[in-house]
Amino acid sequence: MKRIYLDHIAGTPLHPTVLNAMLPYLKEKFGNPQSLHSLGQEALQAIEESREKVAHLINAKPSEIIFTSSGSEANNFALKGLALAHQGRGKHIILSLIEHQSVLHSAKNLEKFGFHFTHIPVDKYGRVDPKDVDKAITGETILVAIMFANGEVGTIEPVGEIAGICHEKDVLFFTDAVDAVGNISVDVNTLDIDVLSLAGDQFYGPKGSAALYLKKGIRILPFIDGGIQENGRRAGTENVPAIVGLGTAAELALEKMESREKKLKTLRDKLIGKLPQEVEHVFVTGHPEERLPHHCSFCVEFVEGEAMLLNLDMQGISASSGSACTSRALKASHVLLAMGIDHARAQGSLVFSLIEETTSGDIDYLLEVFPPIIERLRKMSPLYTQYLEEKKK
Amino acid sequence: MKRIYLDHIAGTPLHPTVLNAMLPYLKEKFGNPQSLHSLGQEALQAIEESREKVAHLINAKPSEIIFTSSGSEANNFALKGLALAHQGRGKHIILSLIEHQSVLHSAKNLEKFGFHFTHIPVDKYGRVDPKDVDKAITGETILVAIMFANGEVGTIEPVGEIAGICHEKDVLFFTDAVDAVGNISVDVNTLDIDVLSLAGDQFYGPKGSAALYLKKGIRILPFIDGGIQENGRRAGTENVPAIVGLGTAAELALEKMESREKKLKTLRDKLIGKLPQEVEHVFVTGHPEERLPHHCSFCVEFVEGEAMLLNLDMQGISASSGSACTSRALKASHVLLAMGIDHARAQGSLVFSLIEETTSGDIDYLLEVFPPIIERLRKMSPLYTQYLEEKKK
Repeated sequence: MKRIYLDHIAGTPLHPTVLNAMLPYLKEKFGNPQSLHSLGQEALQAIEESREKVAHLINAKPSEIIFTSSGSEANNFALKGLALAHQGRGKHIILSLIEHQSVLHSAKNLEKFGFHFTHIPVDKYGRVDPKDVDKAITGETILVAIMFANGEVGTIEPVGEIAGICHEKDVLFFTDAVDAVGNISVDVNTLDIDVLSLAGDQFYGPKGSAALYLKKGIRILPFIDGGIQENGRRAGTENVPAIVGLGTAAELALEKMESREKKLKTLRDKLIGKLPQEVEHVFVTGHPEERLPHHCSFCVEFVEGEAMLLNLDMQGISASSGSACTSRALKASHVLLAMGIDHARAQGSLVFSLIEETTSGDIDYLLEVFPPIIERLRKMSPLYTQYLEEKKK
Repeated sequence: MKRIYLDHIAGTPLHPTVLNAMLPYLKEKFGNPQSLHSLGQEALQAIEESREKVAHLINAKPSEIIFTSSGSEANNFALKGLALAHQGRGKHIILSLIEHQSVLHSAKNLEKFGFHFTHIPVDKYGRVDPKDVDKAITGETILVAIMFANGEVGTIEPVGEIAGICHEKDVLFFTDAVDAVGNISVDVNTLDIDVLSLAGDQFYGPKGSAALYLKKGIRILPFIDGGIQENGRRAGTENVPAIVGLGTAAELALEKMESREKKLKTLRDKLIGKLPQEVEHVFVTGHPEERLPHHCSFCVEFVEGEAMLLNLDMQGISASSGSACTSRALKASHVLLAMGIDHARAQGSLVFSLIEETTSGDIDYLLEVFPPIIERLRKMSPLYTQYLEEKKK
């Protein structure tokens, strides 16, 4: 059976070009970048070249890139590192209700250290209103954290506008751009972003590769304390193969951005357009236009996410129901709830996130196998039976 | 020119068997372990198998292993996570003067949160006296952190005895075993260790692979907050290839422990025995017997570490001068200073750390090229000239 991978948001496959670039660093070029001998020098040069490539992808300076081991680490680093470094100016932080768990939980833990938070709501499309951010800023506010794009519903946030508001009021702006960078154009300079997180496994780079962009001059406390790596800001032996992979993936992403985006948008719009036509009681979640090019998300009423995923998997289709980080928790998504979708409907969350290999034929196949799956599942659903009976009355 | 890599402590080469085990997870088996579809299941199974192998290496239970991205992360996690979880019982922590920077700096940062520390000295061999630990424990003490073996001087600490003392007084015992695990037998059960860190790149596993052992029932706060990975104790998409590599390296280490150890000890003792004979004013650092099998460390008087490394590198030999994490800082090692070696001598620190490929011929070659290097360097050393003049008088 052919396997159709439509779970980009849980991680993309590694691009063969990226793997090829990594292989020498998994074999003969195994030096530690901190070693003074030539094997170390070679590794150091490789990570500095990667730093340039990653910086280039988001229009930053190489010295503004700090490598980390995951987007979650980068998010923890940003929240905790910035909060602790700037607490002298105030202890109030603003974030959206739909941030990633690594941001929300970092915030929750900072509460123990006297920080307090304002959570900004979102509209039915999952978008933050910049005016709400403006209103929430007080003299105590040191940081605003609003994600660039949401991985569960694909909505792209108005981060440029929000950054502008923050800077008018002398507040730092951090954006978790893990789902965005490498997939859509992100220019930290034009958007005037202070701090940003990104992860390689969202754009055909390796797992374990990620980075924090930190605008020159902004103070942060290290999160992983210890050695002098990453200019003293992140201790631990550099994961050279992963960093080389991240750099190569960044280079590829920049080169292919336009063609990937164009192709995926067409496929995305086809699926988003047709799926609700093929199956009753299916609605699109997230913003109709301001959304990630690879992202198609739905709520399928009277059916549970897990059952759909397992049935799709049996037909060779890999999909997801909300964020990978919480999918096994099988709780209703905090993102959907924040968008005003009720608990029952949120349970029917379904995300098809496309990758560069996705074809129009894959979408056709999905549109073919999906309706009978839902029909079968609904037959077993007490909620659906109840709905039909009520409808009859 | 043949390259002779004698810098095990900065990281071992990846064993070809380990790379082969990783490759499928860098290619077609790229799933996210948190995904419910079969690609995710496959990845989940792979990391759970690795967890068993890592647990087996140190005689722990699989559920007691938490994967991290580096030894430094594991050390930060241990110190900060245990301190914050157990602060209700007290805020005093004991550690040795020769801990790794990731432990020492984590401690330093915890001071800001009201924790206070007692630093235990070491003898001239770099060994902690368990009696000193016993004396330092107060009613406020919640944690003792003493490393298993020191990477700069190779000395193995009496951790079993220290663990016993801690448990008599109901204090947790953590050991940074990054330089030990995979190279010598470490049995957390027999030694009664509560928490332990280990890293794959010290035993032919990949960079970016490491773990924290946490004895069942011991509370810890997550360090990277967010998702439900690692049983809710470490957020972030699992680095599946690295974890698979770590498991394979652990399996190999257990299988080859005895033969690797025997072979390396012979080569180690040859080098440790002969180098001070071949060159004047060279002394061995660290314990003569209680030392890592791959570890040969020296102080070479009247010469600076950096100059030796660059000259050795020109002869094809990769070595180090103290810890890789601080080598570029070029500061006198805090370990050597704690052992009573003065600043000037500490600058001449030199570590040859052997790997399983090291041959007796490699040692012979080193013993051949080393004396002329030192002779040349000393001719340029004002301190050596001064010494010779004073000797004449």
